[in-house]
Amino acid sequence: MVGGGRGAFIGGVHRIAAAIDGEIDLVCGAFSSTPEKSKASGEDLMLDPSRCYGDYKEMIQKEKRRKDRIDAVSIVTPNHMHFAPAKMALENGFHVICDKPVTFSLPEAKKLKDIIANTGLTFALTHNYTGYAMVKEARQLIKNGLLGKIRKVIVEYPQGWLSFPIEKEGAKQAEWRTDPKRSGIAGAVGDIGTHAENLAEYITGLKITELCADVNRVVEGRVLDDDANVLLHFDNGANGILHCSQISNGDWNGLNIRVYGELGTLQWHQERPQYLHHKTTEGYQIYQPSVGKLSDSANAHTRIPFGHPEGYLEAFANVYRNFARTVRKRMNGEEPNEFDLDFPTIDDGIRGMQFVETVIASGKSNSKWVKFKS
Amino acid sequence: MVGGGRGAFIGGVHRIAAAIDGEIDLVCGAFSSTPEKSKASGEDLMLDPSRCYGDYKEMIQKEKRRKDRIDAVSIVTPNHMHFAPAKMALENGFHVICDKPVTFSLPEAKKLKDIIANTGLTFALTHNYTGYAMVKEARQLIKNGLLGKIRKVIVEYPQGWLSFPIEKEGAKQAEWRTDPKRSGIAGAVGDIGTHAENLAEYITGLKITELCADVNRVVEGRVLDDDANVLLHFDNGANGILHCSQISNGDWNGLNIRVYGELGTLQWHQERPQYLHHKTTEGYQIYQPSVGKLSDSANAHTRIPFGHPEGYLEAFANVYRNFARTVRKRMNGEEPNEFDLDFPTIDDGIRGMQFVETVIASGKSNSKWVKFKS
Amino acid sequence: MVGGGRGAFIGGVHRIAAAIDGEIDLVCGAFSSTPEKSKASGEDLMLDPSRCYGDYKEMIQKEKRRKDRIDAVSIVTPNHMHFAPAKMALENGFHVICDKPVTFSLPEAKKLKDIIANTGLTFALTHNYTGYAMVKEARQLIKNGLLGKIRKVIVEYPQGWLSFPIEKEGAKQAEWRTDPKRSGIAGAVGDIGTHAENLAEYITGLKITELCADVNRVVEGRVLDDDANVLLHFDNGANGILHCSQISNGDWNGLNIRVYGELGTLQWHQERPQYLHHKTTEGYQIYQPSVGKLSDSANAHTRIPFGHPEGYLEAFANVYRNFARTVRKRMNGEEPNEFDLDFPTIDDGIRGMQFVETVIASGKSNSKWVKFKS
Amino acid sequence: MVGGGRGAFIGGVHRIAAAIDGEIDLVCGAFSSTPEKSKASGEDLMLDPSRCYGDYKEMIQKEKRRKDRIDAVSIVTPNHMHFAPAKMALENGFHVICDKPVTFSLPEAKKLKDIIANTGLTFALTHNYTGYAMVKEARQLIKNGLLGKIRKVIVEYPQGWLSFPIEKEGAKQAEWRTDPKRSGIAGAVGDIGTHAENLAEYITGLKITELCADVNRVVEGRVLDDDANVLLHFDNGANGILHCSQISNGDWNGLNIRVYGELGTLQWHQERPQYLHHKTTEGYQIYQPSVGKLSDSANAHTRIPFGHPEGYLEAFANVYRNFARTVRKRMNGEEPNEFDLDFPTIDDGIRGMQFVETVIASGKSNSKWVKFKS
Repeated sequence: MVGGGRGAFIGGVHRIAAAIDGEIDLVCGAFSSTPEKSKASGEDLMLDPSRCYGDYKEMIQKEKRRKDRIDAVSIVTPNHMHFAPAKMALENGFHVICDKPVTFSLPEAKKLKDIIANTGLTFALTHNYTGYAMVKEARQLIKNGLLGKIRKVIVEYPQGWLSFPIEKEGAKQAEWRTDPKRSGIAGAVGDIGTHAENLAEYITGLKITELCADVNRVVEGRVLDDDANVLLHFDNGANGILHCSQISNGDWNGLNIRVYGELGTLQWHQERPQYLHHKTTEGYQIYQPSVGKLSDSANAHTRIPFGHPEGYLEAFANVYRNFARTVRKRMNGEEPNEFDLDFPTIDDGIRGMQFVETVIASGKSNSKWVKFKS
Repeated sequence: MVGGGRGAFIGGVHRIAAAIDGEIDLVCGAFSSTPEKSKASGEDLMLDPSRCYGDYKEMIQKEKRRKDRIDAVSIVTPNHMHFAPAKMALENGFHVICDKPVTFSLPEAKKLKDIIANTGLTFALTHNYTGYAMVKEARQLIKNGLLGKIRKVIVEYPQGWLSFPIEKEGAKQAEWRTDPKRSGIAGAVGDIGTHAENLAEYITGLKITELCADVNRVVEGRVLDDDANVLLHFDNGANGILHCSQISNGDWNGLNIRVYGELGTLQWHQERPQYLHHKTTEGYQIYQPSVGKLSDSANAHTRIPFGHPEGYLEAFANVYRNFARTVRKRMNGEEPNEFDLDFPTIDDGIRGMQFVETVIASGKSNSKWVKFKS
Repeated sequence: MVGGGRGAFIGGVHRIAAAIDGEIDLVCGAFSSTPEKSKASGEDLMLDPSRCYGDYKEMIQKEKRRKDRIDAVSIVTPNHMHFAPAKMALENGFHVICDKPVTFSLPEAKKLKDIIANTGLTFALTHNYTGYAMVKEARQLIKNGLLGKIRKVIVEYPQGWLSFPIEKEGAKQAEWRTDPKRSGIAGAVGDIGTHAENLAEYITGLKITELCADVNRVVEGRVLDDDANVLLHFDNGANGILHCSQISNGDWNGLNIRVYGELGTLQWHQERPQYLHHKTTEGYQIYQPSVGKLSDSANAHTRIPFGHPEGYLEAFANVYRNFARTVRKRMNGEEPNEFDLDFPTIDDGIRGMQFVETVIASGKSNSKWVKFKS
Repeated sequence: MVGGGRGAFIGGVHRIAAAIDGEIDLVCGAFSSTPEKSKASGEDLMLDPSRCYGDYKEMIQKEKRRKDRIDAVSIVTPNHMHFAPAKMALENGFHVICDKPVTFSLPEAKKLKDIIANTGLTFALTHNYTGYAMVKEARQLIKNGLLGKIRKVIVEYPQGWLSFPIEKEGAKQAEWRTDPKRSGIAGAVGDIGTHAENLAEYITGLKITELCADVNRVVEGRVLDDDANVLLHFDNGANGILHCSQISNGDWNGLNIRVYGELGTLQWHQERPQYLHHKTTEGYQIYQPSVGKLSDSANAHTRIPFGHPEGYLEAFANVYRNFARTVRKRMNGEEPNEFDLDFPTIDDGIRGMQFVETVIASGKSNSKWVKFKS
């Protein structure tokens, strides 16, 4: 693991997600910016001190020489620190699983794609929200035509944790998220807007073709956006809305999606992820994991019987598990199946970076619509 | 009553709303387009046949000459038939309560304002959704500063009843709603978009200053919009989103609003109108009629104790009751109080028509922002 | 109207319920215990002062002699004042609609049944909760076999408004509800337990055959019960639980029912009455008024389109409307239809009084099961 | 691990719960009734084949001799197979964590208590539902007096998975759950009634003193109960209801609790475990993990920020983590803190077995109340 030392939030999440299914062992890491801190974090995790490295370079070089070397590297650092360790890991023969957004900028993301292609290794991006069983179910139902032609998509991601300038009061997470040197050209749009974009395209199978964005810096003194409202057009003619915000005080982690088709709607709310709402003019059904006949995909991503709620960590773990199974099969010369391969890749990463660039550009433009290239 | 004959939906709603509080008696009407149908409708309502008139002109002329003449006229016809009866009623000394949108076009609305001013009579517009007790409560809480400065407003009004071209299959409501000759330049934007705009401005006390609209005709062959997504800017610097749709198959009458301020959010859903959600980073409260200490305004618009749900008809009745009390007090030379006067007026009607014109204009424009004048 | 003067809660509810559908006119009353108060209440209601009577006897005698005499009497007094006015009204040729529980005691209820039979007049009891459209739907679905054989019924009615001894602090409602001279042998069991019993038997079509009750007086100094937990056996072998309480601080008017059959469950909550939940091991549907194909009975008790919530007052009005239609048709020599006749009668009243007696007896007994006769 | 081979549900849950926090490594097991199956299961789990034992006796004997021997044994077999492996593990120096109900019978449970006391080792019982953060919060709030004196407790546990006689159709879980030779004297009462009893006593800090039970075998041909309704009395004078059922078709895993005190109520639903509802006559608050100021106990059992739902597996993991920390500290000569020690023990197990015996006895008795001894 690269990053995720003491005090980091997402590092712990990755570790739990990797551990849940017993298919991955965390054995080494370069957890922090200094060797001392890295060792201390490794000690917390009861790791072999000799495998707690001072930085990612040392880790990759030394691990490469071990007989019991690691198979894959997990990268959980801030955005500006994704590309270099990913590149080095891949070029030294390690598979990579990386936090999102994939890189600091779009050109980096494209370069990374080439590297992955050249090495032939497996790369996963932790757009974890697509790991939920009921998100899988929604995707399958739409693919099967339950809603008919898709007409409208509303995807929203309101959070409130940056409602006040807490980056000036020592909040570590807030510091780097609001810092263009570490986050890139976008704040909320990069951190959570990309999740919303990824979710909408994953569930519907559609692609955004153009958008019109109102990008805001609401808290005084902030350099990057903390709020954005975006009109969308999709490649099948559907329209949509995406909004993301980190100043929506009173919402916690409110990723929601509503997909409307000719024949009805599917609606899903991340904070109550076990429910998928299917409504039409004729009726209202709620689908839940293991209740009734669901898709093979939903079932493959559910661990326990109905009424026993799985949550965020299990969805995150689904990304790790599928990545692990794909890596293991490929290392054994086997072919991963469609469920194994159901994890976000560098292509999702590139679309995410393109989304960030397009939204930021649109926010500065007086023209109504800006094309979304990819 | 003008309009509201057999088969009309909204006429019955107006009659119930007028009846609930025992302050208004329906005694006469011109219910339909032909004298025969009008009589038949009057008979259903057990009215004196001699007061079931052939058209609104006859009604106004004959009622004017009666000793027990009516005090006020209720207009519940399609949009293109609002102005003429309202004008004639006012000019003959009758107070008027009218369905929304107020007129067929903005110029008509402005003319009507002058007529009202000249006659000195009372005019109410049935933007009924502001009649809910918890909407009143939200308005008061925001006025009192509960949320601090307002930063963001999301108001949505998805319906699905026009998902199919039912106007071609004999659905009377659908016929005139989709017909520019009867509805004016807008479909969904006029019918329900105006409710959303009115609700947002009523609750927040803010005014929309500019907007950017994506206006859609989704069902093939439709002349007027049946769907629109709109970015908003408000006069205090807040941003927002308004969307309204009648092709959101699977939503029924989903008027919802979320207001985000510096200090938290208030959220309200018309389909479960007894709950007002107040959320902050620190907690989550749900306010309900008669539970705990609410504003005098919410209490004045609640009839029964907690846990006994009031609904759409009671909210609609609040508009009628306040109108009736204002009329009665003015007729008695008394001063209506602030609760009596809490009903939508011609000014709300003019803003609504301006909203319609601005959204439709923006929908056709390639510029991002279009000013909302008033 | 007998009772329902200034300050009374339920009188106002009855008046609104009678007014909503425009089929009943309130024209006279004996609203209070003194002629002065009665006149004052009548004035509030804008009634003809000459028809605001000093007491129910005067009202019945004088109305009887009028040409435009009333057709029916509504009785909304405390329990001990139901029998005498009902008897006199019936014996003088007036139909009667009466608040529940029907009388002060079971013998009175049985006598009343005889009087009704002898006069051939119509008598309705306002067990208003069976007036909800989705309660009608539940009854029909069960009748049609949706759940298969019924196995278990859980009906609950927690309220919290008597959590403190407010009857000693001048709360008028609380005073008579906790006073055995006015309420009879039961407090909560009579006031709301009877609603729960009536609802369970109405929805399922089953009859309680025996029960085992834990009857409690929780607030110190109270003479009548304010809380009861009851085990139930039904005539088809199903088991059940009924609990009612007025000291469940934090619940408002929480009448809920869950019916479990071999094939699934139907669940309904009075505070969100528009939703009827149908769940099985295979799925979860929510039924709502006017969404999809519902029973004729549900449709006949719904006034407005989907997504426009109707509430407590409309359900109450359904009892009044059906009573009015039955009376009108019978007065016109017509046969009321099955929907007209769908209101609670003296038989429901007698079962309610029997329920009260059985629960109170069981509460005092050391035997486990006490038979419920009827 | 003893038990939990291929096809078992709860074994997998225990493994995930143990893995989540990285504090426990599964290294050996006797997973099934035959050595072959046990090996196969171990292979699935990528364990060292030499540590996949034929039965628990072999496991304990061989592990005892290893230098890298295990510290603790997890027992996840059916009820009749708890006592013997627990006894042997403890007597050979291994700490034990065991599924519930603790043993086959009350006498066994009491014997086990003595063995634990004699060995001085740590024993945990996986009443996992008390592991939820919001259950911890409820317990603390009640301890702190938020509700005043507790007056009423309603705890319910409806499931529907045994609505049909699936034990005759090869459902493995159903087979042993309905078999008195493997489950003991109770079916639903033992399997889930004990969870409800444990939850009620854990949250309130009260003890049940007597009860009155209606115990049912609803599905024809079943020997053990599949449904029970129970009236409760608590040691502070509070009353209550407990019902549990496995034939409540349409409920999934509906463990719910409502605690009413003088000052309000706390309500919690296992299927949406992140919400703790606090209602009073004055207001309605919903508490959630990490939103606002919660108890140290709730915080200590929450892993991720607000809006990121944790579920059943994380609650289960809290029992494992606390057990692991207690064991580790005791092995290191340290004192576990109050959070480490917050897991169910043999005393909970004994109360559970006493509950089973009392309910079954009451079900057969004609007396109303049966004392609950402990």
